[in-house]
Amino acid sequence: MRDKTVLKLPALDPRGVTPATGTNYPDAFKPRVAGRAKRKLGDALGLKNFGVNLTTIKPGGASALRHWHLKQDEFVYILEGELVLVTDVGEQLLEAGMAAGFPAGKPDGHCLINRSDHDAVYLEVGDRGPGDAGNYPDDDLEARSVNGGWTFTHKNGTPY
Amino acid sequence: MRDKTVLKLPALDPRGVTPATGTNYPDAFKPRVAGRAKRKLGDALGLKNFGVNLTTIKPGGASALRHWHLKQDEFVYILEGELVLVTDVGEQLLEAGMAAGFPAGKPDGHCLINRSDHDAVYLEVGDRGPGDAGNYPDDDLEARSVNGGWTFTHKNGTPY
Repeated sequence: MRDKTVLKLPALDPRGVTPATGTNYPDAFKPRVAGRAKRKLGDALGLKNFGVNLTTIKPGGASALRHWHLKQDEFVYILEGELVLVTDVGEQLLEAGMAAGFPAGKPDGHCLINRSDHDAVYLEVGDRGPGDAGNYPDDDLEARSVNGGWTFTHKNGTPY
Repeated sequence: MRDKTVLKLPALDPRGVTPATGTNYPDAFKPRVAGRAKRKLGDALGLKNFGVNLTTIKPGGASALRHWHLKQDEFVYILEGELVLVTDVGEQLLEAGMAAGFPAGKPDGHCLINRSDHDAVYLEVGDRGPGDAGNYPDDDLEARSVNGGWTFTHKNGTPY
Protein backbone atom coordinates (compact mmCIF):
# COMPACT_ATOMS: atom_id res chain seq x y z
CA MET A 1 0.00 0.00 0.00
CA ARG A 2 1.40 3.37 -0.94
CA ASP A 3 1.84 6.22 1.52
CA LYS A 4 -1.25 8.41 1.40
CA THR A 5 0.86 11.57 1.49
CA VAL A 6 2.48 10.85 -1.87
CA LEU A 7 -0.18 12.29 -4.19
CA LYS A 8 -0.38 16.02 -4.85
CA LEU A 9 -3.40 17.98 -6.10
CA PRO A 10 -5.07 17.69 -8.55
CA ALA A 11 -4.66 14.00 -7.53
CA LEU A 12 -6.09 12.83 -4.23
CA ASP A 13 -5.86 9.73 -2.08
CA PRO A 14 -9.37 9.45 -0.58
CA ARG A 15 -7.97 7.77 2.53
CA GLY A 16 -6.58 11.17 3.52
CA VAL A 17 -10.03 12.81 3.56
CA THR A 18 -11.73 12.79 6.98
CA PRO A 19 -15.20 11.18 6.81
CA ALA A 20 -18.16 13.38 7.79
CA THR A 21 -20.83 11.58 9.81
CA GLY A 22 -23.23 14.43 10.55
CA THR A 23 -26.63 15.13 9.02
CA ASN A 24 -28.83 18.21 8.79
CA TYR A 25 -32.01 16.14 9.15
CA PRO A 26 -34.31 17.04 12.05
CA ASP A 27 -33.47 15.04 15.18
CA ALA A 28 -36.27 12.51 14.70
CA PHE A 29 -34.66 11.30 11.46
CA LYS A 30 -30.99 11.32 12.46
CA PRO A 31 -30.88 7.66 13.62
CA ARG A 32 -31.85 6.51 10.11
CA VAL A 33 -28.49 7.68 8.72
CA ALA A 34 -26.35 7.07 11.82
CA GLY A 35 -24.28 4.44 9.99
CA ARG A 36 -23.29 6.80 7.17
CA ALA A 37 -19.84 8.40 6.67
CA LYS A 38 -19.05 10.63 3.67
CA ARG A 39 -15.61 11.53 2.37
CA LYS A 40 -16.29 14.72 0.41
CA LEU A 41 -13.85 14.23 -2.45
CA GLY A 42 -15.27 16.93 -4.70
CA ASP A 43 -14.90 19.57 -2.00
CA ALA A 44 -11.36 18.37 -1.23
CA LEU A 45 -10.49 18.76 -4.91
CA GLY A 46 -11.96 22.27 -5.19
CA LEU A 47 -14.90 21.33 -7.41
CA LYS A 48 -17.93 23.66 -7.31
CA ASN A 49 -20.37 22.53 -10.01
CA PHE A 50 -21.07 19.12 -8.51
CA GLY A 51 -20.31 17.21 -5.33
CA VAL A 52 -18.68 13.78 -5.17
CA ASN A 53 -18.74 11.76 -1.97
CA LEU A 54 -17.06 8.44 -1.22
CA THR A 55 -19.60 7.12 1.25
CA THR A 56 -19.52 4.14 3.62
CA ILE A 57 -22.76 2.66 4.98
CA LYS A 58 -22.50 0.34 7.96
CA PRO A 59 -24.78 -2.70 8.30
CA GLY A 60 -28.27 -1.48 9.13
CA GLY A 61 -27.57 2.05 7.89
CA ALA A 62 -29.02 3.99 4.97
CA SER A 63 -27.77 6.57 2.49
CA ALA A 64 -30.67 8.96 3.21
CA LEU A 65 -34.39 9.02 3.78
CA ARG A 66 -36.17 8.02 0.59
CA HIS A 67 -36.31 11.20 -1.52
CA TRP A 68 -36.14 12.79 -4.97
CA HIS A 69 -34.73 16.13 -6.15
CA LEU A 70 -36.62 18.78 -8.06
CA LYS A 71 -33.66 20.28 -9.96
CA GLN A 72 -30.54 18.24 -9.29
CA ASP A 73 -29.45 14.94 -10.85
CA GLU A 74 -27.90 12.20 -8.73
CA PHE A 75 -25.68 9.23 -9.61
CA VAL A 76 -24.33 6.35 -7.53
CA TYR A 77 -21.77 3.63 -8.27
CA ILE A 78 -21.22 0.75 -5.86
CA LEU A 79 -17.56 0.07 -5.05
CA GLU A 80 -17.62 -2.49 -2.22
CA GLY A 81 -20.24 -4.67 -0.56
CA GLU A 82 -23.92 -4.53 -1.46
CA LEU A 83 -26.78 -2.10 -0.98
CA VAL A 84 -30.52 -2.41 -1.49
CA LEU A 85 -31.87 0.33 -3.75
CA VAL A 86 -35.46 1.28 -2.85
CA THR A 87 -37.54 3.00 -5.57
CA ASP A 88 -41.03 2.71 -7.07
CA VAL A 89 -40.02 -0.34 -9.14
CA GLY A 90 -39.32 -2.19 -5.89
CA GLU A 91 -36.17 -3.20 -4.05
CA GLN A 92 -33.10 -4.13 -6.08
CA LEU A 93 -29.80 -5.48 -4.77
CA LEU A 94 -26.81 -3.52 -6.09
CA GLU A 95 -23.43 -5.20 -5.86
CA ALA A 96 -19.99 -3.74 -6.58
CA GLY A 97 -19.81 -2.45 -10.14
CA MET A 98 -23.52 -1.62 -10.38
CA ALA A 99 -24.83 1.94 -10.85
CA ALA A 100 -28.04 3.93 -10.50
CA GLY A 101 -29.16 7.41 -11.55
CA PHE A 102 -31.95 9.71 -10.48
CA PRO A 103 -32.89 12.41 -13.00
CA ALA A 104 -33.97 15.75 -11.59
CA GLY A 105 -37.72 16.21 -11.28
CA LYS A 106 -38.62 12.54 -11.64
CA PRO A 107 -41.00 11.84 -8.73
CA ASP A 108 -39.56 8.45 -7.75
CA GLY A 109 -38.00 8.54 -4.30
CA HIS A 110 -34.81 6.55 -3.71
CA CYS A 111 -32.47 5.48 -0.95
CA LEU A 112 -29.82 2.82 -0.41
CA ILE A 113 -30.03 0.51 2.62
CA ASN A 114 -27.29 -1.81 3.85
CA ARG A 115 -29.03 -5.04 4.88
CA SER A 116 -25.80 -7.06 4.77
CA ASP A 117 -23.43 -7.79 7.66
CA HIS A 118 -20.47 -5.85 6.21
CA ASP A 119 -19.74 -2.27 5.22
CA ALA A 120 -20.78 -1.03 1.79
CA VAL A 121 -18.91 1.72 -0.06
CA TYR A 122 -20.16 3.76 -3.01
CA LEU A 123 -19.50 6.95 -4.95
CA GLU A 124 -22.33 9.49 -5.11
CA VAL A 125 -22.46 12.50 -7.42
CA GLY A 126 -24.96 15.34 -7.39
CA ASP A 127 -24.92 18.66 -9.18
CA ARG A 128 -25.46 22.01 -7.45
CA GLY A 129 -28.01 23.65 -9.71
CA PRO A 130 -30.05 26.41 -8.02
CA GLY A 131 -33.61 26.25 -6.73
CA ASP A 132 -33.52 22.63 -5.68
CA ALA A 133 -35.99 20.98 -3.30
CA GLY A 134 -36.14 17.52 -1.74
CA ASN A 135 -39.38 15.54 -1.67
CA TYR A 136 -39.76 12.70 0.87
CA PRO A 137 -42.64 10.37 -0.09
CA ASP A 138 -42.43 8.17 3.03
CA ASP A 139 -41.88 10.83 5.72
CA ASP A 140 -43.44 14.09 6.91
CA LEU A 141 -40.51 16.10 5.60
CA GLU A 142 -39.73 18.62 2.88
CA ALA A 143 -36.38 20.23 2.05
CA ARG A 144 -35.52 23.50 0.32
CA SER A 145 -32.06 24.48 -0.90
CA VAL A 146 -31.16 27.84 0.63
CA ASN A 147 -27.73 29.40 0.04
CA GLY A 148 -26.14 26.04 -0.59
CA GLY A 149 -27.59 24.45 2.55
CA TRP A 150 -30.90 22.71 3.27
CA THR A 151 -33.90 23.92 5.27
CA PHE A 152 -36.26 21.19 6.49
CA THR A 153 -39.94 21.57 7.34
CA HIS A 154 -42.99 19.40 7.86
CA LYS A 155 -45.01 18.83 4.68
CA ASN A 156 -47.46 21.55 5.82
CA GLY A 157 -44.57 24.03 5.93
CA THR A 158 -44.20 24.30 9.71
CA PRO A 159 -40.64 24.14 11.04
CA TYR A 160 -39.09 21.31 13.02
CA MET B 1 -22.14 -13.43 -11.91
CA ARG B 2 -25.69 -12.12 -12.12
CA ASP B 3 -27.60 -11.80 -15.37
CA LYS B 4 -27.12 -8.27 -16.71
CA THR B 5 -30.81 -8.05 -17.62
CA VAL B 6 -31.95 -8.30 -14.00
CA LEU B 7 -31.65 -4.64 -12.99
CA LYS B 8 -34.35 -2.14 -13.93
CA LEU B 9 -34.02 1.64 -14.14
CA PRO B 10 -33.16 3.66 -12.14
CA ALA B 11 -30.57 0.90 -11.51
CA LEU B 12 -28.15 -0.04 -14.27
CA ASP B 13 -25.63 -2.80 -14.92
CA PRO B 14 -22.84 -1.00 -16.82
CA ARG B 15 -21.97 -4.20 -18.68
CA GLY B 16 -25.17 -3.71 -20.67
CA VAL B 17 -24.08 -0.28 -21.99
CA THR B 18 -22.30 -0.43 -25.37
CA PRO B 19 -18.87 1.27 -25.22
CA ALA B 20 -18.32 4.26 -27.52
CA THR B 21 -14.89 4.42 -29.11
CA GLY B 22 -15.23 7.46 -31.36
CA THR B 23 -13.77 10.92 -30.90
CA ASN B 24 -14.60 14.34 -32.34
CA TYR B 25 -10.93 15.34 -32.43
CA PRO B 26 -9.52 16.35 -35.81
CA ASP B 27 -8.04 13.37 -37.66
CA ALA B 28 -4.45 14.17 -36.75
CA PHE B 29 -5.22 13.63 -33.06
CA LYS B 30 -7.48 10.58 -33.28
CA PRO B 31 -4.69 7.99 -32.84
CA ARG B 32 -3.86 9.47 -29.42
CA VAL B 33 -7.18 8.22 -28.01
CA ALA B 34 -7.58 5.09 -30.15
CA GLY B 35 -7.38 2.84 -27.09
CA ARG B 36 -10.28 4.55 -25.30
CA ALA B 37 -13.81 3.15 -24.84
CA LYS B 38 -16.52 5.02 -22.90
CA ARG B 39 -19.68 3.54 -21.45
CA LYS B 40 -21.91 6.60 -21.10
CA LEU B 41 -23.69 5.67 -17.87
CA GLY B 42 -25.15 9.12 -17.19
CA ASP B 43 -26.81 9.24 -20.60
CA ALA B 44 -28.13 5.69 -20.16
CA LEU B 45 -29.67 6.76 -16.84
CA GLY B 46 -31.30 9.88 -18.28
CA LEU B 47 -29.09 12.39 -16.45
CA LYS B 48 -28.77 15.85 -18.02
CA ASN B 49 -26.84 18.08 -15.60
CA PHE B 50 -23.62 16.09 -15.72
CA GLY B 51 -22.13 13.21 -17.66
CA VAL B 52 -20.68 10.03 -16.14
CA ASN B 53 -18.58 7.68 -18.23
CA LEU B 54 -17.14 4.30 -17.26
CA THR B 55 -14.04 4.42 -19.42
CA THR B 56 -11.49 1.77 -20.35
CA ILE B 57 -8.01 2.75 -21.59
CA LYS B 58 -5.93 0.08 -23.29
CA PRO B 59 -2.17 -0.11 -22.81
CA GLY B 60 -0.60 2.80 -24.69
CA GLY B 61 -3.84 4.74 -24.85
CA ALA B 62 -4.84 8.04 -23.26
CA SER B 63 -8.01 9.58 -21.84
CA ALA B 64 -7.70 12.72 -23.97
CA LEU B 65 -5.20 15.24 -25.19
CA ARG B 66 -3.87 17.24 -22.27
CA HIS B 67 -6.49 19.96 -21.66
CA TRP B 68 -8.40 22.09 -19.17
CA HIS B 69 -11.97 23.41 -19.18
CA LEU B 70 -13.00 27.03 -18.87
CA LYS B 71 -16.41 26.47 -17.22
CA GLN B 72 -16.86 22.79 -16.43
CA ASP B 73 -15.48 20.78 -13.51
CA GLU B 74 -14.11 17.29 -14.03
CA PHE B 75 -13.59 14.36 -11.65
CA VAL B 76 -11.99 10.94 -12.13
CA TYR B 77 -11.85 7.86 -9.89
CA ILE B 78 -9.67 4.87 -10.80
CA LEU B 79 -11.45 1.50 -10.58
CA GLU B 80 -9.00 -1.00 -12.12
CA GLY B 81 -5.39 -0.97 -13.23
CA GLU B 82 -3.22 2.14 -13.16
CA LEU B 83 -3.01 5.39 -15.09
CA VAL B 84 -0.41 8.14 -15.20
CA LEU B 85 -1.94 11.55 -14.51
CA VAL B 86 -0.08 14.33 -16.36
CA THR B 87 -0.46 17.89 -14.99
CA ASP B 88 1.77 20.86 -14.18
CA VAL B 89 2.94 19.24 -10.92
CA GLY B 90 4.42 16.41 -12.97
CA GLU B 91 3.42 12.83 -13.62
CA GLN B 92 1.68 10.88 -10.86
CA LEU B 93 0.74 7.19 -10.90
CA LEU B 94 -2.91 6.65 -9.93
CA GLU B 95 -3.89 3.16 -8.84
CA ALA B 96 -7.35 1.77 -8.15
CA GLY B 97 -9.07 3.78 -5.43
CA MET B 98 -7.28 7.03 -6.23
CA ALA B 99 -9.07 10.16 -7.46
CA ALA B 100 -8.33 13.47 -9.17
CA GLY B 101 -10.32 16.65 -9.82
CA PHE B 102 -9.95 19.52 -12.23
CA PRO B 103 -11.76 22.72 -11.21
CA ALA B 104 -13.22 24.81 -14.01
CA GLY B 105 -11.01 27.66 -15.16
CA LYS B 106 -7.80 26.43 -13.54
CA PRO B 107 -5.20 26.60 -16.32
CA ASP B 108 -3.50 23.27 -15.59
CA GLY B 109 -3.96 20.81 -18.42
CA HIS B 110 -4.50 17.14 -17.56
CA CYS B 111 -4.75 13.75 -19.19
CA LEU B 112 -4.48 10.11 -18.12
CA ILE B 113 -2.09 7.77 -19.95
CA ASN B 114 -1.97 4.00 -19.63
CA ARG B 115 1.73 3.05 -19.59
CA SER B 116 1.02 -0.39 -18.10
CA ASP B 117 0.53 -3.67 -19.95
CA HIS B 118 -3.11 -4.16 -18.87
CA ASP B 119 -6.38 -2.29 -19.27
CA ALA B 120 -7.23 0.52 -16.89
CA VAL B 121 -10.82 1.44 -15.97
CA TYR B 122 -12.04 4.65 -14.37
CA LEU B 123 -15.14 6.73 -13.78
CA GLU B 124 -15.15 10.27 -15.16
CA VAL B 125 -17.67 12.97 -14.32
CA GLY B 126 -18.09 16.37 -15.94
CA ASP B 127 -20.87 18.91 -15.66
CA ARG B 128 -22.63 20.46 -18.64
CA GLY B 129 -22.56 24.13 -17.74
CA PRO B 130 -22.91 26.49 -20.74
CA GLY B 131 -20.18 28.49 -22.49
CA ASP B 132 -17.41 25.97 -21.98
CA ALA B 133 -14.14 25.90 -23.90
CA GLY B 134 -11.23 23.46 -23.95
CA ASN B 135 -7.64 24.67 -23.83
CA TYR B 136 -4.85 22.36 -25.05
CA PRO B 137 -1.44 23.54 -23.80
CA ASP B 138 0.61 20.91 -25.68
CA ASP B 139 -1.19 20.91 -29.05
CA ASP B 140 -2.32 23.39 -31.72
CA LEU B 141 -5.95 22.91 -30.80
CA GLU B 142 -8.81 24.83 -29.22
CA ALA B 143 -12.35 23.63 -28.48
CA ARG B 144 -15.61 25.54 -28.08
CA SER B 145 -18.82 24.04 -26.73
CA VAL B 146 -21.58 24.66 -29.28
CA ASN B 147 -25.10 23.28 -28.73
CA GLY B 148 -23.82 20.48 -26.54
CA GLY B 149 -21.12 19.40 -29.00
CA TRP B 150 -17.54 20.55 -29.57
CA THR B 151 -16.07 22.62 -32.39
CA PHE B 152 -12.29 22.31 -32.83
CA THR B 153 -9.98 24.86 -34.42
CA HIS B 154 -6.30 25.66 -34.61
CA LYS B 155 -5.14 28.09 -31.89
CA ASN B 156 -5.28 30.91 -34.47
CA GLY B 157 -8.98 30.16 -35.00
CA THR B 158 -8.71 28.53 -38.42
CA PRO B 159 -10.70 25.32 -38.90
CA TYR B 160 -9.29 21.82 -39.24
